[in-house]
Amino acid sequence: MKVSVIGTGQTKFGELWNKTLEDMSYEASMLAIKESGLPKEKIEAVFVGNMLYGKLTGQDHLGALVTSLLGLKVPATRIEAACASGGMAIQAAVHALKSGAYKNVLVLGVEKMTDFSTSHISEALMGAGSEMEKQAGLTFPALYALMAKSHMQQFGTTRAQLASVSVKNHKHASLNSYAQFPYEIDLQKALNAPFIAEPFTIFDSSPISDGAAAVVLSSENNGVEIIASQSSTDTVDLSQRNSFTEIEATKTASQKAYQEAGIEPKDLDILEVHDCFTIAEIMAMEDLGLCKKGNGGQFIESGATMLGGKTPVNTSGGLKACGHPVGATGVKQIIEITNQLNGTLGSRQIKNPKIGLAQNVGGTGATVAIHILRK
Amino acid sequence: MKVSVIGTGQTKFGELWNKTLEDMSYEASMLAIKESGLPKEKIEAVFVGNMLYGKLTGQDHLGALVTSLLGLKVPATRIEAACASGGMAIQAAVHALKSGAYKNVLVLGVEKMTDFSTSHISEALMGAGSEMEKQAGLTFPALYALMAKSHMQQFGTTRAQLASVSVKNHKHASLNSYAQFPYEIDLQKALNAPFIAEPFTIFDSSPISDGAAAVVLSSENNGVEIIASQSSTDTVDLSQRNSFTEIEATKTASQKAYQEAGIEPKDLDILEVHDCFTIAEIMAMEDLGLCKKGNGGQFIESGATMLGGKTPVNTSGGLKACGHPVGATGVKQIIEITNQLNGTLGSRQIKNPKIGLAQNVGGTGATVAIHILRK
Repeated sequence: MKVSVIGTGQTKFGELWNKTLEDMSYEASMLAIKESGLPKEKIEAVFVGNMLYGKLTGQDHLGALVTSLLGLKVPATRIEAACASGGMAIQAAVHALKSGAYKNVLVLGVEKMTDFSTSHISEALMGAGSEMEKQAGLTFPALYALMAKSHMQQFGTTRAQLASVSVKNHKHASLNSYAQFPYEIDLQKALNAPFIAEPFTIFDSSPISDGAAAVVLSSENNGVEIIASQSSTDTVDLSQRNSFTEIEATKTASQKAYQEAGIEPKDLDILEVHDCFTIAEIMAMEDLGLCKKGNGGQFIESGATMLGGKTPVNTSGGLKACGHPVGATGVKQIIEITNQLNGTLGSRQIKNPKIGLAQNVGGTGATVAIHILRK
Repeated sequence: MKVSVIGTGQTKFGELWNKTLEDMSYEASMLAIKESGLPKEKIEAVFVGNMLYGKLTGQDHLGALVTSLLGLKVPATRIEAACASGGMAIQAAVHALKSGAYKNVLVLGVEKMTDFSTSHISEALMGAGSEMEKQAGLTFPALYALMAKSHMQQFGTTRAQLASVSVKNHKHASLNSYAQFPYEIDLQKALNAPFIAEPFTIFDSSPISDGAAAVVLSSENNGVEIIASQSSTDTVDLSQRNSFTEIEATKTASQKAYQEAGIEPKDLDILEVHDCFTIAEIMAMEDLGLCKKGNGGQFIESGATMLGGKTPVNTSGGLKACGHPVGATGVKQIIEITNQLNGTLGSRQIKNPKIGLAQNVGGTGATVAIHILRK
């Protein structure tokens, strides 16, 4: 059975002080439904990807909350897998469609983060990590900085290579009106910024964001097809991993996804990967098989993944520059790939792409969702 | 494709001060896997139903947390739909199996509630309701009390009929060693207890509980078959409903479930329903079609749903007396039905049941999951 993306919609990502989670959810959902061409009443189920709203505001039960907003009385549930909540919500929807339970469903990813202090959000985000990490005083910038340090030590990856991820993604975001930071930066600016967790400056880190992204998935209408949906997990605690310089769950899930899709990494024309920190995009290139282990920094520095390069990565601007409203991210990745494959992205459109991949990561890689799409 | 329950496991429900959420999760999961007869490595995915843990302790990402505990590196996600989290986790697993993605999966429902003050838990549980309800100072006992009052006014339902639900469920729990309150009460005790939200006394309300329940579901091994899995939603806010005296989502989901299973309500031999408050079990009898609208109180008072009656309901003791660790409840219901159909329940075993139904409710009925099982 084929499952296709037949409608997409999103809010701008950023500090949306004038919009509630409900406002954003409604806006993105209705845009996706409108683009699908289906009447609202044809939506048979709703899947909501969200990590933090219950914890931050007390409001749980977002599945029913969203169907209430939309005036639908259909099955709905919330999916949470830390920062991979959006990708896992897509996967739950794909499974439901392929089971034959429904023919058309809505997947919404949403997060409202900027109403809270940074320290509050930093602590809330540590819910994606382990108790031991929290007790040690670690935060996510620090955890990924440990991975970056290991990668630098083991493979000679440089700070300039890390920063080149950010420069690229800011350049891409400058062409995306939905992006939180739609402007370019240069390498010196990234390198000379204050450290937040050495070797990371503020430009190595994705921001705190509000935003919503929604897609309508269908098993009876044609669109951009989801030809693989896979995921995997690893220990929540970074210290328990086999390696600090790779995300094993990315390797496992992507290998299964390539097999399901019947493709190889070289067949990919476009990717959206989870650049929560610059090192994460470098590791993603390696773990997804786009380059050899240890060569991710050079690969990105070479321009291969820039717009105009061989395999553009994060044309949305990625988490770094498009923004990272946690639950929305995995769904936004699917939207960007879909729009690229549909050829609708104007100044950041790449030429005639056929196959794209989205990688959505939870925690330091304890959950990874991989989707492959084809026009 | 057939999906069957091939293994079940649960902790005792109650105030488990000496067990963490991790301890309970591991215990229930390993018991279910052991009973399934499968080696642990055959579990291909894990679905965790949980409502409150992130909010109460900060720890999210329970899918990966549980696979970490079990030493598995397989797809995992957390499902949240308020008090219907367990039932919706079962449904997500059924969809995944029927999609062909996996052949054997684990569903765990778990909640750790007694480490916190009652007022803290009452507030946390309001995450299942609407903002307007919270601002009005409503709690779940109060919301269900409004429904009870309406039912009493409209249909002449009595306090004794409400209490008869509790008396029955305590009697059943007295035969269940996993129950939080494994003892009988009489009608006078229930009626004379202090009011918590008139017309409810403490005996009309389910307790705050710790506990975990797990099942292994399989599409390649035979067991008790899940012949229907349906759900529905309604407005999160009670005041926006068409009626206060019925749960429309129960009617919608159960009608679809009867159709999927090819059965009628009269074919049911055994049920587990969501008696978070006594009125909820009365409405469930009506909304599930076991008796006429308005007759639920008389139906239960008649003894028809008592062990030894025509259609026993909540032989586990229900939420009232077995306990209500929120995320675990929907999974525990599936375990009780499975064990009844397998004929393994000793003193509370009913004679030769063939078909059973589980109804799991979130909020005041904003989410309802219905499963029908057959031996």
